[in-house]
Amino acid sequence: MDTHKPLTGGLNQAQGRHYTFASRMAKTPKSFIREILKVTTNPEIISFAGGLPNPALIDVEGIRKAAAAVLEDDGRSVLQYSTTEGYLPLRQYIADRYKKRLGLSISPDEILITNGSQQCLDLIGKVFIDAGDHVSLERPGYLGAIQAFSLYEPVFHPVTLHEDGPDPGMLAHVLDTWPVRLFYGVPNSQNPSGITYTGRRRREVASVMKKTDTLFIEDDAYGELNFGGETMPSMREFLPDQTVITGSFSKILAPGMRLGWVVASREIMESIVIAKQASDLHSNYLSQRIAYEYLTRQDIDDHIRKIRTAYKNQRDCMIQVITEEFPESVTYTKPQGGMFIWITLPEGCSSMVVFEKALEKNVAVLPGSPFYIDGGGTNTLRLNFSNSSEEKIITGIGRLAKVIRGLCAISPCKNTSGQS
Amino acid sequence: MDTHKPLTGGLNQAQGRHYTFASRMAKTPKSFIREILKVTTNPEIISFAGGLPNPALIDVEGIRKAAAAVLEDDGRSVLQYSTTEGYLPLRQYIADRYKKRLGLSISPDEILITNGSQQCLDLIGKVFIDAGDHVSLERPGYLGAIQAFSLYEPVFHPVTLHEDGPDPGMLAHVLDTWPVRLFYGVPNSQNPSGITYTGRRRREVASVMKKTDTLFIEDDAYGELNFGGETMPSMREFLPDQTVITGSFSKILAPGMRLGWVVASREIMESIVIAKQASDLHSNYLSQRIAYEYLTRQDIDDHIRKIRTAYKNQRDCMIQVITEEFPESVTYTKPQGGMFIWITLPEGCSSMVVFEKALEKNVAVLPGSPFYIDGGGTNTLRLNFSNSSEEKIITGIGRLAKVIRGLCAISPCKNTSGQS
Repeated sequence: MDTHKPLTGGLNQAQGRHYTFASRMAKTPKSFIREILKVTTNPEIISFAGGLPNPALIDVEGIRKAAAAVLEDDGRSVLQYSTTEGYLPLRQYIADRYKKRLGLSISPDEILITNGSQQCLDLIGKVFIDAGDHVSLERPGYLGAIQAFSLYEPVFHPVTLHEDGPDPGMLAHVLDTWPVRLFYGVPNSQNPSGITYTGRRRREVASVMKKTDTLFIEDDAYGELNFGGETMPSMREFLPDQTVITGSFSKILAPGMRLGWVVASREIMESIVIAKQASDLHSNYLSQRIAYEYLTRQDIDDHIRKIRTAYKNQRDCMIQVITEEFPESVTYTKPQGGMFIWITLPEGCSSMVVFEKALEKNVAVLPGSPFYIDGGGTNTLRLNFSNSSEEKIITGIGRLAKVIRGLCAISPCKNTSGQS
Repeated sequence: MDTHKPLTGGLNQAQGRHYTFASRMAKTPKSFIREILKVTTNPEIISFAGGLPNPALIDVEGIRKAAAAVLEDDGRSVLQYSTTEGYLPLRQYIADRYKKRLGLSISPDEILITNGSQQCLDLIGKVFIDAGDHVSLERPGYLGAIQAFSLYEPVFHPVTLHEDGPDPGMLAHVLDTWPVRLFYGVPNSQNPSGITYTGRRRREVASVMKKTDTLFIEDDAYGELNFGGETMPSMREFLPDQTVITGSFSKILAPGMRLGWVVASREIMESIVIAKQASDLHSNYLSQRIAYEYLTRQDIDDHIRKIRTAYKNQRDCMIQVITEEFPESVTYTKPQGGMFIWITLPEGCSSMVVFEKALEKNVAVLPGSPFYIDGGGTNTLRLNFSNSSEEKIITGIGRLAKVIRGLCAISPCKNTSGQS
């Protein structure tokens, strides 16, 4: 009898049995965000902690019409089982949009519809990561990716993310030292930092990676929400065989429909299809059909322009209050898109203390440490600007500034120079 | 440098790079059903190969009304991100229905909404199965479970499924010999066999399992589609701390909405929530809200009665043609619910040959071997009766009977006695 691993943790007399979980569960961080959001449900709290799109910018009426149309015209079909890859016309639409927006030639065969882009990360983990495999990602890195990949028990190698992109020297060193299966990055308006890689940095990263067999996982959840700068090329342009792109309708259409997609070469897609089928057969077909109906009947470009304008104003407002009211020792990013600003407090200032003090003043912020898999980041904060009105931003960031000023005044550390 | 595993399979000059996939991918069977369904899309083919509910029995009008209502009344909320566990009133509804139908006391905290019940199997695999762990299941066993669990690389121990349930002696032997983490079974109208465990067999299985720390994973996708017999108790009645139930709206509401759920004790649920969040954040919220609106406004019991009546008629029709036209050497199950009849040809008769010959006559059937993880079952077939009209059943099973009679006549094997 195989007894190398105990089957149970022993019986608990009062509550019955205890089961031992797969070892991957011990390696997967509980979502700190999830825990934090629980304490911020009080409607009096102004929250910059979450990562929600502004619900006022969801085109409810357009989606309602699209839902009515597909259920009226083709109800029996849209409610039946469907294909694992997803609705072909929707995949063709996504392919056409890549051509139009970014000049990328992608076949619908290289696209699979997922249950939100978070599921892409799970599928990529399933397909590529054996326990002990090497995975690299930005530092700070997107928490959802850390969680998803952790379930496949890799060894993580973080690469410092500067204001212009990942450190190419550090990336080269990591890829030289370890057989890294994939590098995960968010080149456009990263979560959590808001940073967009410059064109130069993209080319440098690509040139480092080209010499290796490491895949670039390009999470492009925010590429359409670029309101402040040049549209940057996809990493696929530089690494055509080596890039897997993940995309999302959550930020441009509606998160509740849970629709994302993954773009990968046919060889990789073959494995992704098997993993997707084993995971949940296929994505919500009703939502796929509603999305396609919406995208072909409504002016999505006009809708995205509205979101961009609103988020730009919200970002401008938040940056203005930060610039005026935060101590000079605090640095922050100026994102050209997306939903987040990244705050770095003076060294030694604890963002957990800021979180607690701010909560006492009914303001919720997100401490940055969960975005660091190797510790660190204890003096960082993520602020979401997409889901607060300018009025709330002015009030909330004002209160936060007072908290930070109070703490920085008594902070033992010396002030560092601002990066912006 | 860690080189115990090659990072790539080498470069392919013509087509670019080849990537090495996680070892789990090599252990996961491609869906044979998927491959077969590809050849059966010709509309002239009468297909008993799939596992689709009858689309004529989807209440499109009721769902259309429910969708219109939630999008009109609460559009901004139903299209926003939501909680990982799922919509609380829907979970409460499911809990109440367990109380009413089966007398089970389940708290909504013990229920999580999934992307179809297939996702429950992926989450259970994530939470409980380390590579090399021992997993037991029925023989034949549900292909979707074999696929989902295979991704977590267990060692499978099949237990023969008799007409009254799994062989208790064999189950006891397997659980005695190995530290089996979970036993997966479909006690009601199993897929693929149509078999329902008798009450006595349920108690015997429970009494074997009670002495162990093995979980019973009770897949109850078909419990509501019981048209021919007594409603059987859930395994949770006998093994309250040891049972995880998976449920589905696909068979009673609509598969395209991809809504299922998992029932587990709070301790287990805590891990399932983490796995679900890492997998896809949460299930489609729009669909959850539509389902809840439907379930509380429409008469779901009346709707389920209609489905039962229709499926009973389709089963009766199929059984009648089989009884009249199949050779006596062929045995078959008489399911009291669900969607499938299981055919056993005389030993030595190949169901792959039947599949090929039947396809020449525009009839598609599903060979049973993919339901056997240890080989075997090469003389078995699964027939779906839920998705064909009586007219098609009469024509299609008639043609199939001819094929089987022709093959049995030339078969070298001696006839075995019928089991029904």
